[in-house]
Amino acid sequence: MPRLAILAGQGALPLKIAAAHRQAVFAHFEGMEVPPPGNEVVQVSYERFGEMFDSLRQAGVTEVVFAGSLTRPTLNPTNFDPKMMQLAPCFMQVMKGGDDGLLRAVISAFEQEGLVVRGAHELVAGLTAEPGLLAGPQPADADHVDAARARSILTALGPLDVGQGAVVADGQALGVETAQGTDAMLRFVAETSDRLRQRARGVLVKAPKPGQDLRIDMPAIGPATITAAAAAGLAGIVINAGEVLLIDRDTTLRTAEKAGLFLLAQAP
Amino acid sequence: MPRLAILAGQGALPLKIAAAHRQAVFAHFEGMEVPPPGNEVVQVSYERFGEMFDSLRQAGVTEVVFAGSLTRPTLNPTNFDPKMMQLAPCFMQVMKGGDDGLLRAVISAFEQEGLVVRGAHELVAGLTAEPGLLAGPQPADADHVDAARARSILTALGPLDVGQGAVVADGQALGVETAQGTDAMLRFVAETSDRLRQRARGVLVKAPKPGQDLRIDMPAIGPATITAAAAAGLAGIVINAGEVLLIDRDTTLRTAEKAGLFLLAQAP
Repeated sequence: MPRLAILAGQGALPLKIAAAHRQAVFAHFEGMEVPPPGNEVVQVSYERFGEMFDSLRQAGVTEVVFAGSLTRPTLNPTNFDPKMMQLAPCFMQVMKGGDDGLLRAVISAFEQEGLVVRGAHELVAGLTAEPGLLAGPQPADADHVDAARARSILTALGPLDVGQGAVVADGQALGVETAQGTDAMLRFVAETSDRLRQRARGVLVKAPKPGQDLRIDMPAIGPATITAAAAAGLAGIVINAGEVLLIDRDTTLRTAEKAGLFLLAQAP
Repeated sequence: MPRLAILAGQGALPLKIAAAHRQAVFAHFEGMEVPPPGNEVVQVSYERFGEMFDSLRQAGVTEVVFAGSLTRPTLNPTNFDPKMMQLAPCFMQVMKGGDDGLLRAVISAFEQEGLVVRGAHELVAGLTAEPGLLAGPQPADADHVDAARARSILTALGPLDVGQGAVVADGQALGVETAQGTDAMLRFVAETSDRLRQRARGVLVKAPKPGQDLRIDMPAIGPATITAAAAAGLAGIVINAGEVLLIDRDTTLRTAEKAGLFLLAQAP
């Protein structure tokens, strides 16, 4: 019988999956989301992949999901177990090319242990959006033009594994998401672009990198994204239908509606 | 006999060209760099291109240089003269695609008046760098790897007219320059990336967009760039030899030397 383990980063997503899958093991990394009551918990460490695989096997785990946001952890090589000593040189090498390479290597390490890696969007219904206007007013023609330009930027950067978001207002690129994430980019736009924008408001596009493996680092937006986009004065947000997680869907849509921000899902 | 007009934005560059060309006309836009004593001054306005062309012609101007940093001015159409009313629809259209399109249209408007558009780097010797290490310590191998990745980002974005700078540290993209400019990006890196970088420092690459017309919006660095890069904790800066303006070269190199930051010029 298949058994799932939730490899938990930070945020609401690991808790949501745990709630939908009470028989799943909650794999807790130090400093990450605190395990909810109701799921079996296994304590794991990035420094000890061998012990992690052993613990998961002992718990009867056959498939895993990476859920929640992760930042590159600080690793202390003196704590590595033999398995991690074997994997680390490859991880160190591929991470020079960006997080995608690292994440692909991590997926492959799990698969080599016979574990199936699942995507969060396969495990909980309604985590992503259907195409259409989800909240707020209809985007204006100028918003569509800005969105198309933001999308071109993401497409051009796709093979380089830079980020999953970009902001364009009246044709001017005001923000390109980097490792710091969407909210940091939106704060940057809020703080720096008033003088440049004048009357133009601007659009955030959030989409996976072309060819991205959605089982890991799936793009996500939530109420905090909406609040940050509103603070940055944007007219709205465009996401890919089926490919972007909606963290706390109801609150997200209500927040957008209240802020007068459009939230539009487009078929990728 | 050729006579030059300096279409002055903000910063040291228009003053530097004026000092090197005392016979040149200093075309002063409201709110931009204040004309130096020693050059003839013509008052001009973005809203009245017809009057601007007339004033330049009356002063015997045959060639112009765009110098200093410009932001998109707020234009009041009720102030437009007939020439500007004729040009404005085209300017409005092309600016939706980014500043490059707008600047190309502006160059072309000057050329259609029979004026030759020159580049600042052609007018003052030593404004750009020769290839080689200009200041600071030799870059480490890891710095060259980060610089190569930052360059790939700029190359990928080149056709999209986004920006002329990118910061990468240990393979992670930490900043992609947008319309707010290099210094704003460096402040963003300083404020947001400590947790991500750990021991890695990172490199800023500053280069023209591929195929960029260097007669307008030529990339530039100066003492403020060095100070901002040092505040962001970077190991150094890589620029294109011959294609990036060094604002106040001596102070720039001295500031880099003092901050322990390398400044490397590479043949494009």
